[in-house]
Amino acid sequence: MDHSNEHANRRHDPSRVLALTDGVVAIILTLLVLELHVPELAGGQGLREAVREIRPSFTAFLLSFIIVAIAWAVHRDLFVLIRHTDRALVWLNLTYLLPLCLIPFGASLLSRYDREPTALRIYGLILVAMTLTRLATWVYVTGHAHLLSAPVDPDSRRWGIVLITVPLAGYAAAMVLATDFPRFSLAIYTIAPIAYFAGMLLARRAPDLEAAG
Amino acid sequence: MDHSNEHANRRHDPSRVLALTDGVVAIILTLLVLELHVPELAGGQGLREAVREIRPSFTAFLLSFIIVAIAWAVHRDLFVLIRHTDRALVWLNLTYLLPLCLIPFGASLLSRYDREPTALRIYGLILVAMTLTRLATWVYVTGHAHLLSAPVDPDSRRWGIVLITVPLAGYAAAMVLATDFPRFSLAIYTIAPIAYFAGMLLARRAPDLEAAG
Amino acid sequence: MDHSNEHANRRHDPSRVLALTDGVVAIILTLLVLELHVPELAGGQGLREAVREIRPSFTAFLLSFIIVAIAWAVHRDLFVLIRHTDRALVWLNLTYLLPLCLIPFGASLLSRYDREPTALRIYGLILVAMTLTRLATWVYVTGHAHLLSAPVDPDSRRWGIVLITVPLAGYAAAMVLATDFPRFSLAIYTIAPIAYFAGMLLARRAPDLEAAG
Amino acid sequence: MDHSNEHANRRHDPSRVLALTDGVVAIILTLLVLELHVPELAGGQGLREAVREIRPSFTAFLLSFIIVAIAWAVHRDLFVLIRHTDRALVWLNLTYLLPLCLIPFGASLLSRYDREPTALRIYGLILVAMTLTRLATWVYVTGHAHLLSAPVDPDSRRWGIVLITVPLAGYAAAMVLATDFPRFSLAIYTIAPIAYFAGMLLARRAPDLEAAG
Repeated sequence: MDHSNEHANRRHDPSRVLALTDGVVAIILTLLVLELHVPELAGGQGLREAVREIRPSFTAFLLSFIIVAIAWAVHRDLFVLIRHTDRALVWLNLTYLLPLCLIPFGASLLSRYDREPTALRIYGLILVAMTLTRLATWVYVTGHAHLLSAPVDPDSRRWGIVLITVPLAGYAAAMVLATDFPRFSLAIYTIAPIAYFAGMLLARRAPDLEAAG
Repeated sequence: MDHSNEHANRRHDPSRVLALTDGVVAIILTLLVLELHVPELAGGQGLREAVREIRPSFTAFLLSFIIVAIAWAVHRDLFVLIRHTDRALVWLNLTYLLPLCLIPFGASLLSRYDREPTALRIYGLILVAMTLTRLATWVYVTGHAHLLSAPVDPDSRRWGIVLITVPLAGYAAAMVLATDFPRFSLAIYTIAPIAYFAGMLLARRAPDLEAAG
Repeated sequence: MDHSNEHANRRHDPSRVLALTDGVVAIILTLLVLELHVPELAGGQGLREAVREIRPSFTAFLLSFIIVAIAWAVHRDLFVLIRHTDRALVWLNLTYLLPLCLIPFGASLLSRYDREPTALRIYGLILVAMTLTRLATWVYVTGHAHLLSAPVDPDSRRWGIVLITVPLAGYAAAMVLATDFPRFSLAIYTIAPIAYFAGMLLARRAPDLEAAG
Repeated sequence: MDHSNEHANRRHDPSRVLALTDGVVAIILTLLVLELHVPELAGGQGLREAVREIRPSFTAFLLSFIIVAIAWAVHRDLFVLIRHTDRALVWLNLTYLLPLCLIPFGASLLSRYDREPTALRIYGLILVAMTLTRLATWVYVTGHAHLLSAPVDPDSRRWGIVLITVPLAGYAAAMVLATDFPRFSLAIYTIAPIAYFAGMLLARRAPDLEAAG
């Protein structure tokens, strides 16, 4: 292999992009638990009651853990398809990490103000930004065949777009509904991961589409 | 190697699963130390006395460090056996990371309320969840030979189940005993790592079983 | 391959240098968000107003996220060129990580005191130190051809020095101007990332220079 | 390659040990900066004065950053020599990470109580524990030739022991001297990194010894 070839291969090697993403996800998963504060016992209060009071924090922790875990699993599926990176893809990925890093903040906001439209809108905005970058990455890489490890046919490409647009529309709807129907908005954020797992089971029958979702 | 083969290999490559797990463990090991607060000296108090007061925190730190270190060593031993991942294994591993991430919270709870049944029960619940996922992973991968780097015979498989069920039963017992015998419960959490090291020395004589424990 | 050869290869393998750098950047990106505190509502205040109050924190978060992301992208581009490390390069890289680790502190300082000359000078000092180490690394590796994966001709080397000296001069100017023209100083820190992206687009036409910038 | 061979190779592959260590070091380096608190301005106080007050914190940050960076560089040099791991080496390495994780705590203690014998003794204890594990690892791996990528002759082995014993003795002396000569004790901690860099320059003339120090 001549010099310029090796150089080109190293330039397009996605390994550091994956290392950075795995690192960021590992930290977010672990930071989420910092939201769970060990309760201070007020006079006469038992630890059992005190622990019960942090239950909303625990629910927010669990929900955010699952959302970040899904974001990582989806990222892994997508990069199974990607053999080479270019500068645009490096920056699309950095843009994906930005809303991901904001999830602990959104989760913390939601755990304290779970019926406040503003909190629900901010949480939705973070998820919309994340899903939008996912969509942009999908459209970009499937449009640049030399980046892929296997070609993606136009049908799979379109299916992929649909599969990402569904949660995107859901989060956008949750944002819009936050002002007048906060409970409905919260329900969407809770249902979204369930829909992902349902979709995963369906996708087992159509394995070619796996990487898109 | 043709395209679809390379694609399949990348899809089943466990490297990102390991990278995420190593990252999460590295962060947990380092976060545990944040529980050790530099003491503020009250009027007339010497630093020596003040440091003595944080001794329970230090014990909780040390115990949790050892438990997380064991969890990582066991995970490493298990994945020595695993050559390929599939979607179920990816999610079993993410499920393993969930209780792992909760250990700093459990340790913090235990360091402050080490005779409170609720604290002891929560710590036990975290360890039961972790060990249960380990058992599920063991049963799953040994039942799917194509995921393994070397076949596991039925005897080793059964032995592996026994070796994981022992601490599982211990933690479950510690949870049940927490209400009436908190000291006994705490003793089990302390003895468990010692039992692991004892088992490790025994396993040196039966190296085929190493990966299970 | 004989023993001494393999040993030499391992000694000069840059992979752990990259792993450490990717880890540090992943943590910094994620720690930055810890600066965003979930607001406590004062009596009668709505969450919307409260969120508006943390807008300066959010701007500082965003700016620092982009600066760290650029620092990582530039580091990745540079190490595409580097095939071997030596002890000097290992320590140049550790020296690069030092100001990088200080960026969350600088960002936090700037978000609270964004018109204070001292805060602006400290932020500038961190960026100057970072850019200076980048310059030193560029000069060092391009002067040691055996470390490179492809030779860098004298022209590209000189261009690289110019491309790093421009932001260096900018940050130094921002430091000097901080006392008398704090707003101008702040403007430079904000414009610098924009200049990087502009330069990136220009560099697409001169791809040989990419690694320098 | 037959199954049992591949299995044996994976079992002895040091890559996850390195990944965990790099992750822990990356987090420690980044956590150290959390000790630098953005000053709150008291009435009438300028930011400049306030920043001057956190200078001791900054010194402690810098010293600890350098000590952790050296610990990582030494670890990297050592593992250049190591081709295979076994269970004992995995646990020696986990034992090395324990005092490493305690350095941010020691640094924080030292930055607040830099003339207190107790603080100086605890800092010394952490460094003694770290250096002792390094010595144990060196003795262990050089005594098990099949773990090495290149054989280490008895002379180099003995030299390596001497090179690790020197700082070990220094830290032990600093601990003993802490009660009666706190300033002298602090001086040793400050001089140790300088001695390392001096030794590094000397070692350039005797490159075979590099991995030991």
